[in-house]
Amino acid sequence: MRTYLDCYPCAGRQVVDAACDLDLDEEVAARLMKRVLSLILEADPALPPPLIGRDLHRMLREETGSADPYLALKCQATRQALDLLPEAERRVAAGADPFHEAVVLSISGNVIDLGTGAGRGIDPRDVLDHALAASVDRSGVAALEHAARAARSVLWLADNAGEIVLDRPLLDRIGPERVTVVVRGRPIINDATLEDAARSGITGRFRVIPNGSDVPGTWLPECSEELRSCFASADVVVAKGQGNYETLSGAPRELFFLLRAKCGPVAQDLGVAPGAFVVRHQSDGSALHSAPR
Amino acid sequence: MRTYLDCYPCAGRQVVDAACDLDLDEEVAARLMKRVLSLILEADPALPPPLIGRDLHRMLREETGSADPYLALKCQATRQALDLLPEAERRVAAGADPFHEAVVLSISGNVIDLGTGAGRGIDPRDVLDHALAASVDRSGVAALEHAARAARSVLWLADNAGEIVLDRPLLDRIGPERVTVVVRGRPIINDATLEDAARSGITGRFRVIPNGSDVPGTWLPECSEELRSCFASADVVVAKGQGNYETLSGAPRELFFLLRAKCGPVAQDLGVAPGAFVVRHQSDGSALHSAPR
Repeated sequence: MRTYLDCYPCAGRQVVDAACDLDLDEEVAARLMKRVLSLILEADPALPPPLIGRDLHRMLREETGSADPYLALKCQATRQALDLLPEAERRVAAGADPFHEAVVLSISGNVIDLGTGAGRGIDPRDVLDHALAASVDRSGVAALEHAARAARSVLWLADNAGEIVLDRPLLDRIGPERVTVVVRGRPIINDATLEDAARSGITGRFRVIPNGSDVPGTWLPECSEELRSCFASADVVVAKGQGNYETLSGAPRELFFLLRAKCGPVAQDLGVAPGAFVVRHQSDGSALHSAPR
Repeated sequence: MRTYLDCYPCAGRQVVDAACDLDLDEEVAARLMKRVLSLILEADPALPPPLIGRDLHRMLREETGSADPYLALKCQATRQALDLLPEAERRVAAGADPFHEAVVLSISGNVIDLGTGAGRGIDPRDVLDHALAASVDRSGVAALEHAARAARSVLWLADNAGEIVLDRPLLDRIGPERVTVVVRGRPIINDATLEDAARSGITGRFRVIPNGSDVPGTWLPECSEELRSCFASADVVVAKGQGNYETLSGAPRELFFLLRAKCGPVAQDLGVAPGAFVVRHQSDGSALHSAPR
């Protein structure tokens, strides 16, 4: 997805939010704002917005001298989501269609996102209520279930800390034996890393690999050889969250995007209302059919 | 009021909103965004944010080749507010305290503001419902009423088109014979000009003067001699809206600010919750008492 007009002020808004979330010194925040304004002035609008996010958060880490400024917030979100998990699993298991319920729960968890304006101020503990109120395209879920059941390998491109805990009921139903969970290669905003996956009960239960990059998405040119190889060879790839959609929309393979459309440009690009729960099946550009390979 | 960190992305957001409100060509909007980013990179944070607004909208007028890009939107808001006026006046007159009701109505009208994010998407026709739900500091209203009753001259620094129509019940109660209404000197966003005052039934009923400036506020260094003289000599000055607060907060005279706090920085500067209805009595810095002079 290209960079939209709205993405420019959004980058500045992320600095304001970081100043608040991380209690930045006023002088540091002002300097970071100037650096980010200079950054977006030079940004290539043909590239996806997470590349601005990558540079913005590199600057933030430089300015704060912290390798993982959101660590405490990520740990808190993980703990809150772990507290929710038993009740979430009960609701999923008790639903008329547990796979569908697990998809809805996973998408509901995508509100735990400190990178977007809409994700801020959300208490992870409210996620179950979001899930109850959600409306998700049933044919998209059915296509995902059909593809996942038939697949030998499912590559799950994870998104944020806390959120990944609530992916577990779905990942369990897809089957731990065929799932590889991909996390970011280095800390970026509240996106999940190897450490966050370990805190979330993902590691050990599922194969987990880092993508080798600090882009808040999956920007293949900067990912590791291992990630690119898995991405090319997996029977099914599921990309979770806005950043993965922004960086992989239009990628030359079949993909399932699962996310909440939390900002105007992503909603516009998907052709949905802001706030929508999205299951989007992207066919391989070279294939007429969207059945799993 | 100084420029806060939030004001930087807000300037970019105003470009996004202008692109939408005025249906700007994509290339024009992108060029304007770059110009505005360069502008705010150089902005002096000690100065009030409406000076960024002034330059931003000068650029918008250049890029669009229109001297008053918001003319159609202003006319629409004025018509809608004029349609509301009879019902609004009935409600004010029927209230337990008509002066208080008229103040609440006037502040409610301050949502008709295309410059702030919170003001967009508001239908002027909903303003009466906003007024019904409002909570306004009664002692501030009482101080304004006391000061206005005792005054020989009241300078009313108006804000937006549409909004000024809903100021009329209050201006009538203050007394047309002592009121001078000040409008912007040139078109800027949807702020009211002489033409808008004429369309609103203000002209003829009240003395109206332009302030000589295209700042979306009252920036005295750029206002006319006439305005500065009236400002210095009026018994009471009432400044309506955020822009007037941002440019006159701390000015060396007694002032009444009437506004809705529609953005974080203004709410923070005032020490109120975002969305609050504000009647703020600013004493003369040199006086211990806040009675009208």
